[in-house]
Amino acid sequence: MENLEIQRHSLAHILALALLRTYPEIKFAIGPDVDNGFYYDIDFADKKISDADLVEIEKKMKHIIKQNLKFVRSEKDIDQAIKEAQESNDVYKLEILEDLKKEGESQVSFYQLGEFSDLCRGPHLESTGKVKVGSFKLDKIAGAYWRGDEKNKMLTRIYGLAFSSPEDLKDYLEIAEEAKKRDHRKLGKELDLFCFSDLVGPGLPLFTPKGMIIIDALRSHIEKVCRRYGFEKVMTPHLAKISLYETSGHAKKFSEELFHVSSEKGHDFVIKPVQCPHQTQIYASRARSYRDLPIKYMESEKQYRAEKSGEVGGLSRVYAITVEDGHTFCRLDQTKEEIKSLVNIIKDFYSALGLWGKHWVSLSVRDYSSPDKYIGDPKDWDICESILEDVSNEMGLGAKRIEGEAALYGPKLDFMFRDSLGKEIQIPTVQLDFATPKRFNLVYKDRDGSEKNPVMIHRAILGSYERFLALIIEHYGGAFPLWMAPVQVKIISVAEKHIEYCQKLKQEFLDLDLRPDLDIENETVANKIRKAVSEKVPYIIVVGDKESKGKILAVRKRGEQKIEEIKKNDFIEALKREIDDKK
Amino acid sequence: MENLEIQRHSLAHILALALLRTYPEIKFAIGPDVDNGFYYDIDFADKKISDADLVEIEKKMKHIIKQNLKFVRSEKDIDQAIKEAQESNDVYKLEILEDLKKEGESQVSFYQLGEFSDLCRGPHLESTGKVKVGSFKLDKIAGAYWRGDEKNKMLTRIYGLAFSSPEDLKDYLEIAEEAKKRDHRKLGKELDLFCFSDLVGPGLPLFTPKGMIIIDALRSHIEKVCRRYGFEKVMTPHLAKISLYETSGHAKKFSEELFHVSSEKGHDFVIKPVQCPHQTQIYASRARSYRDLPIKYMESEKQYRAEKSGEVGGLSRVYAITVEDGHTFCRLDQTKEEIKSLVNIIKDFYSALGLWGKHWVSLSVRDYSSPDKYIGDPKDWDICESILEDVSNEMGLGAKRIEGEAALYGPKLDFMFRDSLGKEIQIPTVQLDFATPKRFNLVYKDRDGSEKNPVMIHRAILGSYERFLALIIEHYGGAFPLWMAPVQVKIISVAEKHIEYCQKLKQEFLDLDLRPDLDIENETVANKIRKAVSEKVPYIIVVGDKESKGKILAVRKRGEQKIEEIKKNDFIEALKREIDDKK
Repeated sequence: MENLEIQRHSLAHILALALLRTYPEIKFAIGPDVDNGFYYDIDFADKKISDADLVEIEKKMKHIIKQNLKFVRSEKDIDQAIKEAQESNDVYKLEILEDLKKEGESQVSFYQLGEFSDLCRGPHLESTGKVKVGSFKLDKIAGAYWRGDEKNKMLTRIYGLAFSSPEDLKDYLEIAEEAKKRDHRKLGKELDLFCFSDLVGPGLPLFTPKGMIIIDALRSHIEKVCRRYGFEKVMTPHLAKISLYETSGHAKKFSEELFHVSSEKGHDFVIKPVQCPHQTQIYASRARSYRDLPIKYMESEKQYRAEKSGEVGGLSRVYAITVEDGHTFCRLDQTKEEIKSLVNIIKDFYSALGLWGKHWVSLSVRDYSSPDKYIGDPKDWDICESILEDVSNEMGLGAKRIEGEAALYGPKLDFMFRDSLGKEIQIPTVQLDFATPKRFNLVYKDRDGSEKNPVMIHRAILGSYERFLALIIEHYGGAFPLWMAPVQVKIISVAEKHIEYCQKLKQEFLDLDLRPDLDIENETVANKIRKAVSEKVPYIIVVGDKESKGKILAVRKRGEQKIEEIKKNDFIEALKREIDDKK
Repeated sequence: MENLEIQRHSLAHILALALLRTYPEIKFAIGPDVDNGFYYDIDFADKKISDADLVEIEKKMKHIIKQNLKFVRSEKDIDQAIKEAQESNDVYKLEILEDLKKEGESQVSFYQLGEFSDLCRGPHLESTGKVKVGSFKLDKIAGAYWRGDEKNKMLTRIYGLAFSSPEDLKDYLEIAEEAKKRDHRKLGKELDLFCFSDLVGPGLPLFTPKGMIIIDALRSHIEKVCRRYGFEKVMTPHLAKISLYETSGHAKKFSEELFHVSSEKGHDFVIKPVQCPHQTQIYASRARSYRDLPIKYMESEKQYRAEKSGEVGGLSRVYAITVEDGHTFCRLDQTKEEIKSLVNIIKDFYSALGLWGKHWVSLSVRDYSSPDKYIGDPKDWDICESILEDVSNEMGLGAKRIEGEAALYGPKLDFMFRDSLGKEIQIPTVQLDFATPKRFNLVYKDRDGSEKNPVMIHRAILGSYERFLALIIEHYGGAFPLWMAPVQVKIISVAEKHIEYCQKLKQEFLDLDLRPDLDIENETVANKIRKAVSEKVPYIIVVGDKESKGKILAVRKRGEQKIEEIKKNDFIEALKREIDDKK
């Protein structure tokens, strides 16, 4: 256990002691350390506590720290511990003790802190005085079912934040504050990027014109990049007979995530939860020769997964998933090069977003102890794993081998990034698959006339547009780079007499395939600039007497205070360069 | 009855007499005239007849025509006719007679031709000699259930073609032959534009890279045109709660066409059969002011309808319908101008395809005798009808008023075209709708501060990509105009030493966003040209010694035999112009 974790866990006990001193009747459930601090789940019976109470409790915790009380470990025979828990009617600890006994434990350890004694494995700080002053803070109150099961009683969970130093706590609070401002649900609404409807239902986002501009900018960018690497666009329907997924193996593996489709006329379909099986059928629609390979399909269509209704929310977890999906069918001797070119696409794409470098790569292999969770021949799996390992070595990816993270049909390279607020994001992936082509009996005629199965490579670059949009909204805090900004230039009129030129200018930008917007309202320029700034528009152009003459523009760049004069043609050139650079 | 119809109907009787002379035991059902000729349904008992027999029967018909037999009309008391039919065991005529009696008929007419007498309203030619020699032809044999009901006996239907003159018959046969060659199912397979999969199911086309190029070319063209008219792209999911369609009225009206969606976790959705209700929810997601209107959304997503499984086929009738759909929300005082701009989009789009001019317009109004088939206030319907009538008058559309063809929510202008083979196509439509905004409680704040419902205008320009693709495949016979051709230029190498330049040329075209394809196989140039011609590629470039030097191209244009020399830059300029012109 690391030092910080020990401090966090000890703080959970300090919280418990502070609570016990205030509310002697409460019952304690569990109090672990977590990623950013600690919590304790408590049964307050019918008493309610509020955020105001937290202030008092935090004061008492600080007092306990000042007291420098010792954490004293002791061991007990488990039957003795059970007996004592029964006598004190300590129902939650009792349940834990009985489980431990069932698992064969005979001795258990307790930690005594002042008048609070807790069943606990430890370890703990030597004494409360070791907690660094100013490095923790009680955060919030939430409800939590005992053991996470909604059939059980709802307990009160008190969260605390704790870090190695007051500076780290301050940094965390600042980032959390920024993350709240950047929350894609909040910004999505403010910037009018997407919406939900009670009549349509949650988990089913509707993309408004501005959100759609971002999606289309991303789509045409990714399609252009992939086309350069030989990908061709296809389109497949959302429905299929279940037999398609029985063949692929998804029917069994994803049975709970499948949406079933029926009609009064007796139709019986499922909605695609993935794109790959449909795309195999395009491959299968014609005879293929070794000279035709590699064949690469890409597609940007929706797939649907029956997530738990309680878990859908925002764009991160939805039923309707618009995936930028692609599959390469190639010969074994082409496989390594194809994987490398896919890694290069990923590298190019995420470098442009400034995320490459802040990443690590997982070589996600199978769980060797549960072969029944996968389809395909173990020998093929071994070959696939060694190909991916070679690619990692030859390209210097330094992939870490993670067991149990493989796909249904094969191992994969997963790329993990951190966004501008440090949140880990796992989106791009390259997956090697010998099994699916065999299950669908996909073949090509080789040079020697024999029939062979192609290798199938699955890849995601930006993954789903929904999750990717959530990511970039939060990554950029809504201040999108020029090439994806819904409004690229806001044109503001100084006075009524300048409106006509503003409109002319707007048309000029439109004709250049740029995305201008007008603000010719009868308000002050300062007000109009303020509005445009809050909309995070990359460039604001203010049109007064001088500008109306036509050669010069007064431009304010996002993030800067000053308004600069620039020749119109130079400005347009600069815009185009910035868009092409995708910076 | 027109002359041609009379001749066709008389030919059905002549066919019957010829059959009676060959097969005295057969029983006659019905023998009407149809669009391109006539048929007779006959009960041959257990006898089978073949196409070879048709030759003999046609000879006998010609003999009957030469005989110049008279058609003799007579009237009978219906009970007498029933009695005679019973005696001769003429079961089909008997059933018809009994129905006529039930309907209150007391007298029926018969036509005697030689030894064949038929219950028939007439009229007929005076005598068989009036049939123009060479103007008819027996066509084919098919099965047909008595009275079209599959519970009844299957009869043999013999089809004949008949026209006013031998020339008209010849024209018809030529067009029918061409139509067979141009059948989109046949060409779609030959040109590799789309495919079907048994595992996915019929009615669910999969679009291959070449088909997708055409769809994307159409999509980006139509979106560009519509954007110029103020349309903004949105994207909505395929699922919704049924409450969305209960509100819109579709749940009741389209109940049989709805696909229902469920999951093991208890989800309950329907798949969208139309796009409009989803788009109303984007409008409804924000407060709107009179200054925001008109708001125009467009979308190219799939909708699904549960067609009868026996009726889906090719691209013309599918479950998965990718619609280019759009909706305008505007104020009443903007409505007429908005409708006019939509008519102009339709005019522009179909003019480019060479179809405008060969069209007529229907003002499709409600069935006044069945008001319950529609939603909305009859007074609103009257206003809508008069607005559409005004537009038709002011734009000189000459719309014909057709009752009973309105949409669920309002009257519409439908545009009917004829393709290059004369087949009528009904695709574009502009529909006026006061009812839907009220049902969804869509509002805007008017200048005076009051809340008003916007007017909703539904429009289709190219309709569904599936039906439109079927149309243009057949209209162009697969020889697509340059701007939508999947392969625009085929580059053919003369000898091995020219391959490198061919590849360089291909890259050059690619960099110009053109769609080149290489044929560098080790075959004769003549063979490679033949292949490219059969693929209907607009331009073939042959690269030999002279061309490899880089300035000159040898180009063969589709439909021409000669190969012309042209400067490379001039050729590229010409291509770009042709693409921009969308000709």
